[in-house]
Amino acid sequence: MNKKITDFFRDDIDILNEYKVHDSEGLVKLDAMENPYDHEVMVDTNVTPSIDFKTTEFKNYFGAYVNINRYPDANCKNLKKGLINKYDLDKKYDSIIGNGSDELIQLICLAFLKSENVVLCPQPSFSMYKKISQVLGLKFQEVPLLEDFSLDTNQMVKKIEELNPALIFLAYPNNPTGNLWDKEDIDLILNKANGVVVIDEAYGAFSGESFIKQLDNYDNLLVMKTISKVGLAGLRLGYLFGEKSIIKKIDKLRLPFNINSISQEMGKLYTENEEFIYSQTKEIIKNRDYLFGMMKDIEDIKVYDSKTNFILFRLLKGSSDEVFKNLLADKILIKNMSNTPGLENCLRVTIGTKEENILFIKSLKNSII
Amino acid sequence: MNKKITDFFRDDIDILNEYKVHDSEGLVKLDAMENPYDHEVMVDTNVTPSIDFKTTEFKNYFGAYVNINRYPDANCKNLKKGLINKYDLDKKYDSIIGNGSDELIQLICLAFLKSENVVLCPQPSFSMYKKISQVLGLKFQEVPLLEDFSLDTNQMVKKIEELNPALIFLAYPNNPTGNLWDKEDIDLILNKANGVVVIDEAYGAFSGESFIKQLDNYDNLLVMKTISKVGLAGLRLGYLFGEKSIIKKIDKLRLPFNINSISQEMGKLYTENEEFIYSQTKEIIKNRDYLFGMMKDIEDIKVYDSKTNFILFRLLKGSSDEVFKNLLADKILIKNMSNTPGLENCLRVTIGTKEENILFIKSLKNSII
Repeated sequence: MNKKITDFFRDDIDILNEYKVHDSEGLVKLDAMENPYDHEVMVDTNVTPSIDFKTTEFKNYFGAYVNINRYPDANCKNLKKGLINKYDLDKKYDSIIGNGSDELIQLICLAFLKSENVVLCPQPSFSMYKKISQVLGLKFQEVPLLEDFSLDTNQMVKKIEELNPALIFLAYPNNPTGNLWDKEDIDLILNKANGVVVIDEAYGAFSGESFIKQLDNYDNLLVMKTISKVGLAGLRLGYLFGEKSIIKKIDKLRLPFNINSISQEMGKLYTENEEFIYSQTKEIIKNRDYLFGMMKDIEDIKVYDSKTNFILFRLLKGSSDEVFKNLLADKILIKNMSNTPGLENCLRVTIGTKEENILFIKSLKNSII
Repeated sequence: MNKKITDFFRDDIDILNEYKVHDSEGLVKLDAMENPYDHEVMVDTNVTPSIDFKTTEFKNYFGAYVNINRYPDANCKNLKKGLINKYDLDKKYDSIIGNGSDELIQLICLAFLKSENVVLCPQPSFSMYKKISQVLGLKFQEVPLLEDFSLDTNQMVKKIEELNPALIFLAYPNNPTGNLWDKEDIDLILNKANGVVVIDEAYGAFSGESFIKQLDNYDNLLVMKTISKVGLAGLRLGYLFGEKSIIKKIDKLRLPFNINSISQEMGKLYTENEEFIYSQTKEIIKNRDYLFGMMKDIEDIKVYDSKTNFILFRLLKGSSDEVFKNLLADKILIKNMSNTPGLENCLRVTIGTKEENILFIKSLKNSII
């Protein structure tokens, strides 16, 4: 690259980090909070090298024809309608569909992009709140969680009064700690904040708790959800609910056609056919509680309570780098969290299938030396 | 929305416009530069309400199983490799896949987000260059095209010397005018500019011309392409090529997992099986030239030469609003461009199938009163 171009790049470009994803080929993949029940979709087309196409016969349990030469619905009308029905939301609320929750966080930050605005978050929490805020140039402030990972409400309230944040992101339950903060603590924050409070319920299906019904009580509340963790990470579909007037403003920052046609159609189909997702979620919760019990019995680790599809644990002896490497040698991929302030020597394991969890426990026991 | 929240929004939120898309249900759709040969893909899954899944038998011309409970490849490795092979690019170049070219424009702007940086574009051109630059707070400057829509190189060079733009976007061929700028004019701009020049070849398949081979000659050149216009608008896949060191920096601004699993897989399959796309493109070019001839014979309109899959024309009598409405009454949707400075009383029609083009011509003749 020539020197002249280098000078035009933003000044922080070299200190920005790429999002690192570990190669998972051939491994038991317990690193990314995916649903472990492999679920393939067949995408096919019987096009022949001519300009006349025939489509294949439709003969499966559920499915759809998606016309991919056309642009997708720019506003995801059908999918939005399906989601609003599912959650039985009043007409005064509306939604935005994002290319994953990440895009929704970006849109929210873009809508509140103003030099004096501050984003406030507990720490540790989902890393994208900070990364996206900073990339867009919003001031970002964090309040450390207490030692048991509960909210430090005194500090949160103090910071709200001091900084008057435009945005507060609260993951409910929290990632990467896995716990569910007290509803009363969040109510207090919602009451104290002048700005918007985004409750991120990415893992909500595994906790059974939600703030969706609280939309009626707070005019500064947005609720964000995703279908990634319950079983459809490959489609990239997040959604945001809130009062129409707020949603309308945020939606102005969205690039049109942000959701491809196939994800829109599949998202709608899954919203209408959720029984199998529910049964998987129940199974994952059962397996989580079983895995938690087994991990509790292992000496030299501290296991943190989880309301999600993952479990965070801390090594009381040895190093997380070593344990991560030892598990990898057994072809088991989990996530090493030890670089996150407050999570020194911590690792995070996604709940797998029953068989995967047993493999993990066995390898973990051998890994702690 | 409460007043306190209103104050936090960015100051320009109310003057930002949503991207308006006309309802096209039941209409002959000639408004969006899509490939007109309807091309359905079947997406199906034979899940049953249990946690054991079977996949359907794979028996079509081409297709793939896509595992949608997993996150997509965060870096689109296979699709990128396929595209780099297709264009026979040297190892010193790399690519980024975007959720449509729109996302790539946003990423490029984010990488050059610095208060002193200027984005320069000819005008009229693709509206997203301006919209995205402004939303991110980059200074945006435009140079009007000459009356025949060719580049005003004198003015472009003057502005380059005066403003030292970090970014210049050049659509090759240009949208919405449809013409191909002189290669020599673009070479001059590439030589004069210190910053990055992005050549947007969204419609390149219909012109047969490309700057990809020029990557060897200019260290400030990026080339952007898309599979939307040739026939796969529903997948949302744009791609950007450039020198590795530049691409690497821009890629840092990309949200991980920005391309869903199905679009990645389908994009790869289509890259490997392009014969049918080529035959359609040839057919569209033939139909464009035929349609152009027929439009030339209509009095009271000026038709502009096109190297794309659309034709821009100007009414010499009557109003474009009226003609747009009259066509719509015949269930034909084209695009009214008259609000764009320089395109007063202009309309833009996408090349349809032979039958659609005949319907359009017939209705157009009746519409000009």
